[in-house]
Amino acid sequence: MGEFKILEIKQSIFEDNDKDAESLRQELKKQKTFLLNLMSSPGAGKTTTLTKTIEALKDEMAIGVMEADIDSDVDAQAISKTGVKVVQLHTGGMCHLDADMTRQGIKGLGAEGIDLAILENVGNLVCPAEFDTGASKNAMILSVPEGDDKPLKYPLMFRVCDVLLINKIDVMEYFDFDLEECMERARKLNPDIKVIPISAKTGEGIEGWANWLRSEVKKWQQGME
Amino acid sequence: MGEFKILEIKQSIFEDNDKDAESLRQELKKQKTFLLNLMSSPGAGKTTTLTKTIEALKDEMAIGVMEADIDSDVDAQAISKTGVKVVQLHTGGMCHLDADMTRQGIKGLGAEGIDLAILENVGNLVCPAEFDTGASKNAMILSVPEGDDKPLKYPLMFRVCDVLLINKIDVMEYFDFDLEECMERARKLNPDIKVIPISAKTGEGIEGWANWLRSEVKKWQQGME
Repeated sequence: MGEFKILEIKQSIFEDNDKDAESLRQELKKQKTFLLNLMSSPGAGKTTTLTKTIEALKDEMAIGVMEADIDSDVDAQAISKTGVKVVQLHTGGMCHLDADMTRQGIKGLGAEGIDLAILENVGNLVCPAEFDTGASKNAMILSVPEGDDKPLKYPLMFRVCDVLLINKIDVMEYFDFDLEECMERARKLNPDIKVIPISAKTGEGIEGWANWLRSEVKKWQQGME
Repeated sequence: MGEFKILEIKQSIFEDNDKDAESLRQELKKQKTFLLNLMSSPGAGKTTTLTKTIEALKDEMAIGVMEADIDSDVDAQAISKTGVKVVQLHTGGMCHLDADMTRQGIKGLGAEGIDLAILENVGNLVCPAEFDTGASKNAMILSVPEGDDKPLKYPLMFRVCDVLLINKIDVMEYFDFDLEECMERARKLNPDIKVIPISAKTGEGIEGWANWLRSEVKKWQQGME
C-alpha cells in the first residue's frame, strides 16, 4: 500500500479564484509538477481509469493522487493499492474544488519531487467545470452508459477540458451510444478537444491515453507549455 | 406532441429556502397537486424512466413535467412526445433547483388541475440534495453502471430520498454491481427508503414504481400525507 492520509479541506478564503489558480499553476511549473484535473459524473470510472493510468506510468515518473470526495475513503483505498502517494480530500459537502482547496491537497500530498499529480475531482458535470483548480490540463471521462447527448446538456464541462476519455467502450453494444455523433458534439463545443475511447476495465485505449499524458508531462517539465 | 415551452429561470431572491419550500408544499397541497422531485447523476436514465412512468399513468391522472437543464431542450422534446404538458427550465448554469425556482416552473406549467407534477432536476448527485424544492416526495435514480458504492460517496442524496430506483438492471450481468449490498448501504443511511429495481428500457419494474406513485398521489390528494 502507498502512503494514504485523509485531509479535511477548508472553504477557500480567496475571492479571485482565477488569479489564485494561475498562481498555483506557476508554483507547480517551477517545481516541475504537472497537475491533471480529472472530472466526470459519479460512476463514470475515474478511479478505475486512474488505477490503470498509474500502472502504465509509475515506473517512469513519480505520481501522487488527490482523491476529492464529500465523504468516504473508498477511492483513496483503491488507489493506494497501486503503491503511489494518495491523499483523500474531504470537501465537507462542497460540490467542486477550487484552486485554494487544490493547494491544500498539494500541500497534504507533499508534491515536491512529484512529476505527475492527479486530482480526482468530485463526481459532478456541473460545478467543477466552473472553477479553475490551477491544473496544467483538464480531462473528463464520459462513460458509454451515460449517453451520447451529454455534450448538449453539460456544454461548459466539454469546453474546459483538453481531453475527453470515452470510457466503458467494452459495453458499447448493450447501449444506444453513437461514438461519432458524441465526438462531433464535443468538437462543436471545443474544436481542440482530444478524444480517446477507452475501456478502463479491459485496458483498451489506456496506452494511447498514457502516451498523451507522458508527452504532456515532458512538455510541462521542459517549459514548453 | 404535448405543450412545450422554454423558461429562463431567475436566481432565487428568498434567503430562507426551507421556509419557502414548506410554503410551496402547502400551496400545492391546497390545489391537490403532488410534486415529485426526481434526481440522479447525468445519464442515469431520468428521461427514459419518466417517459415510461407517464405512459403508465397518463390515462388516469393529469401529469405535467418540468425539465431542468443548464442548456438544451432535448429532454423536454422527448417528454413532449408523450402528450403531457412540459416546460423546459433553463437554469443558466445553476447546478440545482431551489423552491423559488421550482415555483417559477410550476407557474410556467400552469399546475392548476395537474394531479402529478414532476420536476426532473439537474443531473447531479451533490447540489440538488441540499435544497428542498417544495416537493411532496423526493426520488432518485441510481443506474447499475454507476456502481454499488454510490451511497458511500453521496450520502446526503440517499438520505433525502423517499424512493431509490435502481435503473438499467437489464445490463446487470455486464457490470460488477451487487444489488443486495447497494440496498443495504442505502438503508443504512435511510432505513425508510423504498428501493425499486427497474429497467426503463425494457419496462421491468415500472409497474411497481407506478403503483407506488399512484398511491402517494391519492394519499396527497385526500390529505392523508
